[in-house]
Amino acid sequence: MKRGLLITFEGGEGAGKSTVIAAARTALDRRAVAHLDTREPGGTPFAEGVRALVLDPAHENLCAEAELLAVFAARAQHVWAVIAPALAIGKWVISDRYTDASYAYQGGGRGQPIERIAELERWAAFGLKPDRTFLLDVAVEEGLRRTRARGGTADRMEREDGRFFERVREAYLARAEAEPERIVRLDAGRAPEVVAADVVAEMDRLVERWRAGEA
Amino acid sequence: MKRGLLITFEGGEGAGKSTVIAAARTALDRRAVAHLDTREPGGTPFAEGVRALVLDPAHENLCAEAELLAVFAARAQHVWAVIAPALAIGKWVISDRYTDASYAYQGGGRGQPIERIAELERWAAFGLKPDRTFLLDVAVEEGLRRTRARGGTADRMEREDGRFFERVREAYLARAEAEPERIVRLDAGRAPEVVAADVVAEMDRLVERWRAGEA
Repeated sequence: MKRGLLITFEGGEGAGKSTVIAAARTALDRRAVAHLDTREPGGTPFAEGVRALVLDPAHENLCAEAELLAVFAARAQHVWAVIAPALAIGKWVISDRYTDASYAYQGGGRGQPIERIAELERWAAFGLKPDRTFLLDVAVEEGLRRTRARGGTADRMEREDGRFFERVREAYLARAEAEPERIVRLDAGRAPEVVAADVVAEMDRLVERWRAGEA
Repeated sequence: MKRGLLITFEGGEGAGKSTVIAAARTALDRRAVAHLDTREPGGTPFAEGVRALVLDPAHENLCAEAELLAVFAARAQHVWAVIAPALAIGKWVISDRYTDASYAYQGGGRGQPIERIAELERWAAFGLKPDRTFLLDVAVEEGLRRTRARGGTADRMEREDGRFFERVREAYLARAEAEPERIVRLDAGRAPEVVAADVVAEMDRLVERWRAGEA
């Protein structure tokens, strides 16, 4: 059986991930590609429990080391119990955030050393890298404006200030620069529907190459 | 201000830790040594949340990597927010389990590599080692007999089989052999009150040396 592809979506606050991910799912449905849709931190009962702890504003004094280990604990279970088994039986997996988010948030945002994150990626994410990553890049100001317009209660990450999100964005852009083959950077300052059209076109190409045995 | 001492208690199921720890606390109270009593995994709201997730029998398929990272996430927050600040203001800290438990349970029990645990100890436990550790050593059969007699619902760790606990015990004994200056191994096959008397005698010696500036 042909292994499925792991497609991840990354980006800061207000980048429009939800709209774009929905379009990507529809693109796979239209081409009858079986897929599993998930998110990080989360994706298993244990990992969703960790997510709730990490995002709870009550834990505002959470140290950077604890946060990094917690998201990788969730990720280990997610990869082991959900993502890897799905890929193995030929399903595609669409994940709202994955390891690049740790480089951006816990690395860029919180200042945890990159080598530390890379080491955790090797054994705690079982070395599993995405086949394609879409980075929705938007100016921090614009992203925060959209988030505020959306309303709702801000979680522990969303309560960070603009400088934190600037560091997150820079770390994401550095990732995209270092791995241009895997990471597709998209200008998410445009309307989400326009960004979604770019993603759908790339997904269509990926499906064709995958069916032809080239991906 | 003189830094307090970190005293940890380790041992498998049914080793009689509760009785012995209560006696150790009383010994410090009698000598008017301010102390903070805590446990692992746990000791902060975030870490107690992680403990609940890790011990929940509903997460029976938790992989060893996720378990190891989760207990160290809890430990990072515990050391950073609770243990280190208490020691810094001269309090002693008495903890029911600490890093040796990770070598025993996640290392010996689950087979996670020792170097991986040592690396996490370096940065996620901020290199903080106990000043004295009491290892309550009891034969696995006897410990499990006591646990069963106590009744109650078994958590995810307690549901493991005898071979698991044999590996945990062996790992604990290897720790004691490697660090005889720090780890005091006690024959916990005896009545808990008898074991407690040994601990109290050692605690009294420690307090004297600490007051004299030797510990």
